[in-house]
Amino acid sequence: MGRLSVVRWVGLASVLTGLSAAALAKAEDVALVVTGGTVVTMDGTRRVLSPGAVAIDGDRIVGVGTPDEIGRAFSSKHVIDATGKIVLPGLINTHGHAPMVLYRGLADDLALKEWLEKYIFPAEAKTVSPEMVRVGTRLAALEMIQSGTTTFADMYYFEEEIAKATKAAGLRAVLGQTIIRFPVPDAKTPEDELARTEAFIKAFKGDPLITPAVAPHSAYTLEKHTLLASRDLAAKHGVPLLIHLAETEDEVRTSQEQSGLTPTGYLESIGFWAPRTLAAHGVWVTDEDIAILKRRGVGVAHNPESNMKLASGTAPVPKYLAAGVALGLGTDGAASNNDLDMFEAMRQASFLHKLQSRDPRAVPAATALEMATLGGARALGMEREIGSIEVGKRADLIVVGMRRARQTPRYDALSHLVYATHGDDVETTIVNGQVLMHERKMLTLDEEAVLREAEAFAVRVRAAVGR
Amino acid sequence: MGRLSVVRWVGLASVLTGLSAAALAKAEDVALVVTGGTVVTMDGTRRVLSPGAVAIDGDRIVGVGTPDEIGRAFSSKHVIDATGKIVLPGLINTHGHAPMVLYRGLADDLALKEWLEKYIFPAEAKTVSPEMVRVGTRLAALEMIQSGTTTFADMYYFEEEIAKATKAAGLRAVLGQTIIRFPVPDAKTPEDELARTEAFIKAFKGDPLITPAVAPHSAYTLEKHTLLASRDLAAKHGVPLLIHLAETEDEVRTSQEQSGLTPTGYLESIGFWAPRTLAAHGVWVTDEDIAILKRRGVGVAHNPESNMKLASGTAPVPKYLAAGVALGLGTDGAASNNDLDMFEAMRQASFLHKLQSRDPRAVPAATALEMATLGGARALGMEREIGSIEVGKRADLIVVGMRRARQTPRYDALSHLVYATHGDDVETTIVNGQVLMHERKMLTLDEEAVLREAEAFAVRVRAAVGR
Repeated sequence: MGRLSVVRWVGLASVLTGLSAAALAKAEDVALVVTGGTVVTMDGTRRVLSPGAVAIDGDRIVGVGTPDEIGRAFSSKHVIDATGKIVLPGLINTHGHAPMVLYRGLADDLALKEWLEKYIFPAEAKTVSPEMVRVGTRLAALEMIQSGTTTFADMYYFEEEIAKATKAAGLRAVLGQTIIRFPVPDAKTPEDELARTEAFIKAFKGDPLITPAVAPHSAYTLEKHTLLASRDLAAKHGVPLLIHLAETEDEVRTSQEQSGLTPTGYLESIGFWAPRTLAAHGVWVTDEDIAILKRRGVGVAHNPESNMKLASGTAPVPKYLAAGVALGLGTDGAASNNDLDMFEAMRQASFLHKLQSRDPRAVPAATALEMATLGGARALGMEREIGSIEVGKRADLIVVGMRRARQTPRYDALSHLVYATHGDDVETTIVNGQVLMHERKMLTLDEEAVLREAEAFAVRVRAAVGR
Repeated sequence: MGRLSVVRWVGLASVLTGLSAAALAKAEDVALVVTGGTVVTMDGTRRVLSPGAVAIDGDRIVGVGTPDEIGRAFSSKHVIDATGKIVLPGLINTHGHAPMVLYRGLADDLALKEWLEKYIFPAEAKTVSPEMVRVGTRLAALEMIQSGTTTFADMYYFEEEIAKATKAAGLRAVLGQTIIRFPVPDAKTPEDELARTEAFIKAFKGDPLITPAVAPHSAYTLEKHTLLASRDLAAKHGVPLLIHLAETEDEVRTSQEQSGLTPTGYLESIGFWAPRTLAAHGVWVTDEDIAILKRRGVGVAHNPESNMKLASGTAPVPKYLAAGVALGLGTDGAASNNDLDMFEAMRQASFLHKLQSRDPRAVPAATALEMATLGGARALGMEREIGSIEVGKRADLIVVGMRRARQTPRYDALSHLVYATHGDDVETTIVNGQVLMHERKMLTLDEEAVLREAEAFAVRVRAAVGR
């Protein structure tokens, strides 16, 4: 820590006071410098350095400034030249079910009931296993690293396997074992699930990459006592809570019939809402629901693509933003999207809310980008650690290529990031100071092996649903 | 023609009757065979050959069948191995303004009036010229070839320059000189514009790649006599008409105030509608309007991304489809989208109409794909020449890679094409029998030169709007 503090101080000094090279005893040697690109910091003043540079040492960002400032303050054997490219905080996918990439495109264009009952549930019943979760998470991690996601939130089964595969790939994640009323592949009862969750929390608490979480599925799939036990377990260990909320109109109708309350209001009435809770979807919410979520400090994961493809509805994003709710973006599982590309999630958030609010000024590029970075960090309660390129934060950042025909010419970096860029344009992905991909070459995963494993597993999925 | 007929007959014979190699005198030598991929034909029975093969000679498709059938009937020195990939009819972009790629991302997230008056109109007034149109079309052509578009419809200025640049790039296009009430960069009056249009038609009529068209801008920007003169000019030369229709609610309100009729109804009342007319947008239409468009055989270009980003509204696509209107997809100009990727247009059409109709079965993948291929051909009145992979049609087809993490595993080719594929996945683009890109290498355009030219021109655009 001593050395890190010194390095951080040198970085700060050179950037904040503009001390000349001569005034500093000596350029500090650090692990990595990324220099020459347009650095979109997402810091407190939303500074865009064009060109800029970032110095990284250990797992932290130790300097942010112009290439000259960083060049004077830091030296490194490893320098990534980002000239002409954009350097961005790593993207944060606040809602998904990583292993479900193995059901990607298995069935589409169906009514929700048929989709679930004829395809997704039978496939899950017959194929979810530690192996499936491992193979699926490796594929999802490959896709996320290749498209610039550095942190993801996940609710599925066998999360300890997801955690191991995520760590091996080098990604950061908030992982919650699903707790639900029905028997599931890794547990028979909610009590088993709570016990599994606590074991998982103990196993991974304090991990530099994995934040274990408690993930009660939803208000409509759990009894009151399990919801509260989930909340208490999260509070006991100081870990996040992840829950689905008000995804469909049916869910709200059922809630109204059963309790006379909206799902948000019901969870408020039983005292469920606690700080550091992430509610996924939040499509069908009233103004009062939004006020509750704001008051309780609940983060919301907006999943525009999944909500459109499943015809769930349109979350009132401009209202959430106006209310100051911590709002992140998510892809949801790839069975209902069908990819994990956060650039598409940004574009879709912007397009969707311009249309629905009938205002082309709604969710401008800067807002969409904030939702995918700092907003996601806030929604997960991790904004002191990730979400922006600032000295002292974890070194989670990406370098995005900007030389495609569809990105030419370039008048505005933020416009291109949201309206003309794909995950495939990401060239370098760095998490916790570790380079996971550089110039599209995977450094922590064997791409061909991951694809082959997934294809081999798909044979079993096909058999499970008779396709 | 004699030889072509023979070849076509051989192809047909081998496919339709399954004649053995011995029964055929000898495998016919052809220019190119694409073999081994999943061939999504979009033919009358929507046949998907997996694997399949396509034989090409001259500008035509001369054989479609299994790799064995094609291998027996045809031989070629040039064989493209599409194993593991998808072979698709080239995509048809039914509405756009190609040179406007030079204004891509110049201004976004603004109210329509401010966007037009502060940015787009000043930029156009100061920079549209034969040179701008040439540079912009080359950039647009590069982007389209790289993303699998083989035919595009265009309404802009100096269309003779667009035509030359399009031909040089090897793309197919339907090009209409804009006719509008105001002075424009290439003409002072609608009369001048009509004269320029006729000269353009005479110069390019019968061209193998360029279909000249007459492009009256819209009902609200033209007098009745110019609209009718446009229609008459198209009829005189047997060329298509291109027009904007009912893009915004304001346009319909103005029309109602002025004539008591919708734009569609007004154009019907003056006798404007003629066969082989393409109406772009068609967002704000009544059931009666749809009935008129169907009755008059008018095609519609649906532009979901532009309509969302500009907050124009949602075209009633399920109603158009139910009525049997010839419906194509378009990107609109890149100033309002911001790219020319037809895969995104497909995905957006599907997502948007599932959401708005509150039915996840709306616009399934197969329908989105049809709109981007055969539907577009029908909307342009070119379905006998393009839009599907069938013997006798022009050889316009693309080979799409399917080996990305986000495309793995693969249960359903159509699902992946619409829900998980980008333009960047296109590896080979063939138009009129000519290979324009193979394995992402451009064969008709110097990619670096095109990008450099565009960047150089952008300096002038920046100066024009003071950015």
